[in-house]
Formats: sequence, C-alpha cells, structure tokens
Amino acid sequence: MEGLLKFTTNLPSMKNIIIASTSTVHGSGSLEYLLEELSVFFKNTSDILFIPYARPGGITHDEYTAKVNVAFNKINKKAKGIHEFENPKEALKNAKGIFVGGGNTFVLVNQLYKNNLLEVIKDVVSNGTPYLGTSAGSNICGLTVNTTNDMPIVYPPSFKTFGFVPFNINPHYLDPDPISKHMGETRETRIKEFHKFNTQPVVGIREGSWLAVKGDSIILKGDLSARIFEYNKAPYEVDTETELNRLK
Amino acid sequence: MEGLLKFTTNLPSMKNIIIASTSTVHGSGSLEYLLEELSVFFKNTSDILFIPYARPGGITHDEYTAKVNVAFNKINKKAKGIHEFENPKEALKNAKGIFVGGGNTFVLVNQLYKNNLLEVIKDVVSNGTPYLGTSAGSNICGLTVNTTNDMPIVYPPSFKTFGFVPFNINPHYLDPDPISKHMGETRETRIKEFHKFNTQPVVGIREGSWLAVKGDSIILKGDLSARIFEYNKAPYEVDTETELNRLK
Repeated sequence: MEGLLKFTTNLPSMKNIIIASTSTVHGSGSLEYLLEELSVFFKNTSDILFIPYARPGGITHDEYTAKVNVAFNKINKKAKGIHEFENPKEALKNAKGIFVGGGNTFVLVNQLYKNNLLEVIKDVVSNGTPYLGTSAGSNICGLTVNTTNDMPIVYPPSFKTFGFVPFNINPHYLDPDPISKHMGETRETRIKEFHKFNTQPVVGIREGSWLAVKGDSIILKGDLSARIFEYNKAPYEVDTETELNRLK
Repeated sequence: MEGLLKFTTNLPSMKNIIIASTSTVHGSGSLEYLLEELSVFFKNTSDILFIPYARPGGITHDEYTAKVNVAFNKINKKAKGIHEFENPKEALKNAKGIFVGGGNTFVLVNQLYKNNLLEVIKDVVSNGTPYLGTSAGSNICGLTVNTTNDMPIVYPPSFKTFGFVPFNINPHYLDPDPISKHMGETRETRIKEFHKFNTQPVVGIREGSWLAVKGDSIILKGDLSARIFEYNKAPYEVDTETELNRLK
C-alpha cells in the first residue's frame, strides 16, 4: 500500500491554470485581452463554473455573474455562478472549467473557507479541471494571500490558499511613482517587508500579463516582464516566455 | 454596589490622544511637523514609552527606537522601547507618555496580541496616559484595522483594536489620481467596499492632519480637511477644527 500511495503522489501533475494579473487592462473591455487565449483554454466546454465570491465593489453574486457573461458570451461560453447550485461541491466536481474573478481577496478567501470549498477546488484543479484566476482569483493560487494589495475589509479564518504555484502572487504589480509625494510605501517596499517575516518568493505580475501553468511548467505570458522577489536577493525582472518552474 | 459601578463607568473620560495620519510629511524630518504640538502634549514627562512593534521596512526594535529618538531629542524627550523592559505591562502602567509608531499594521497588531498588551494599554490610556499614534499606531485607535492600507504580511489573531474613537481610521488618506491607468481600486472605492460588509464610519486623515482626542472631544487638527465615510451616505469633507464627537 505504501508503495502504491507513493507512486500515486508521484504522478505527473495535470494542472492547467491561467493566473492573470487583472481581468481588465486600461481602455479595454472585461477579459478582452485574454479572450482569444480563453477560447483555446476552455476549448472542451462552453459552460464555465464561476466563483463570484470576491464581489468587486461589493456587488451581488448575481450582478457579478451577469457582468462576466458579457465577456464570455463573446467567445460563446456561458458562466454559471456557484451560488446558483444547491450543492457547490458537486458543481465543482462536475465542472469542465472554473473561473475565479477578482474583487476583494479577503472577502473571497473568507467565503471559500466559510463554504468549505478550498480542498475540493484544490483536488479538481490538481486533477486537470482548467482554472482561470484574475486578480483576487490569482492571489489565491499562491501559497498565501499575505501579498495581496487589497484592503482587509473582513477577517478570514486563515491567509493560506491553494499553493498551485510554490510562491506568492502580487497581482496588479506597480512600479514606484518617482514623482509621488505620498509617504505610503511602494509595492516593492511592501514586498521587501514581507520577506522580513516570510521566505517564499513573490512574483509581481503586471497588468496584461499572466502565468500559464501546465503540469509542472509555469511560463510568464503577455507583453510585459514580471518582477521577481526572492528572500535575501535583490529583486529582478524576467521576460515574457520565461519558465518559472525552478522558483521556490 | 450596582449603583457605585454604574457611577464609576459614567465618570468623564480622561483620554488624551493624538491620532496622526503619518509620522513624516514629504520633504520634512520625522515627526517635525508635530514637534511643537508634542512638546505641549508630553509636557509632564521627558520619558516616552515607545512601542516599536510595527517595524517599518522590517527594521529591528532597537533601530526603530534609535530613529525615533533623533526626533524626540529635538524637544528634549527620550524614548525607551518597550522591548527593553523586563515587564512590559508594568512599564505601561508606569509610563507618563506612550508613542506607538507606524510601519506595518498587521505586524503591530500581531505583536500586541502575542504580548497580551491590548487590555493594559486600553486601561492606562482610558485613565489619562497621553498616547501618540502615527500611521499604524493610529489605525489601532479605531474599532478595527479593517481599513488599513498595509500589506497583510503576517496573520494576526484578530483585527479588533482599541476603539479609542467609535469609528475606523484610514491614515495616509489619498485622493484618486485622475490620470492613473492602473486598474487597482482608489482609496475611496476600497472604503465604500468596506461599507458593504461593515457599518462603522471611517475617517480618512490626510498626511499632515491628526485627531486630537481629549476626554469625549475629538477634533480634527492640521491644515487639511478630512474625508468622512458613513454607512449608506455619500462621503463628505470636514474642515480642520471640526468636532467629530457625534460620529459613530
């Protein structure tokens, strides 16, 4: 039995994940920059199970689902909100594609814990169900949400999340503004501060970029470079198409 | 006995607190804009008990204490870090002035809970020990830290804090940047989102402003106006010298 278990856990990973910095780039419609990619990514299904828990601006689950459908309809997909299902766990097990949208990361994580859905999502995604995350939905693909930019408007039971990648994500990564007179910290200062208390790497993904995770491969996609923060190392840039597999 | 207890809790509040948006305004030294005010505020003592737990940029408690002394020495005060005392609770009870500096709010709150100091600080400050807070040290004067701007780099046991004022604080309050192309939320959007999940008011204090709390009186000080966010109400500005006592 021990040998069998060992063999099972050594199976190649089936993960198929898009971890996007943002749903929307400036001057463009929701998900527009990603639609071509998504029609390939979700090629095996027209039905997407949508998790609207992050509630951007506090909108309702129904409102958020309707908004997302405006984008998905352009590629002949239909999103159904997980809140519409009597049994969300069954819905996740049956899903052929999952989308977790942005909004507030704390609200999202809180609701996932409240509904006890973290384990089942982790399971189905590890077994190959395509998962698209944007912003808050990307944050939770990392080890923890300790590097979110969001305001902690609710107190979730934990900051630990999926760990689909062996590092933390900082979505909407923003370079310092050289003319600012505001005394708040830059994003880089905050992430460096994170490393005074934590050791895992952080990948700062700029708006319009995403990580494509396929099995054990993690590749930076989009036009821009990403900024990598490793413990006890100077931050550095990586170009698009760089493999990030060895980062941990 | 019941009558006596009732009488005791109805005693006028002895609170004497400065809740400052920031320690440092752009182009000026640490605490410089407040030093004149502080020499009156701390007139009864030259020894300040300093709580360096927020560790800006992750610096050590010793480094932070040394930095703060550069400012306090200009008004002939000396800060001693609470970490230098064998018995921090006794130190708080004996203190004639307390300063809680800025840095990371989550790190500060976590350390206060870890060292079990919230109750004793609440007690001594309610009984009249002058308390100066800047940034993170101001955030904790509100009901909760759900409206901090900081990155949640550690997970504290709770977001509940002193409640010296019956609302939440948003320090370093920042107006929206009309030319930004970044898709992250403005401060106003974030605080409105907070009100989808919470009902207490939020006072956005701009850099260079502070709240002066004396007994039951709360007055906005400094040159700038503050922005008030009440549940189910449009946000509005209040001028300096406005009394905020009725806000709750």
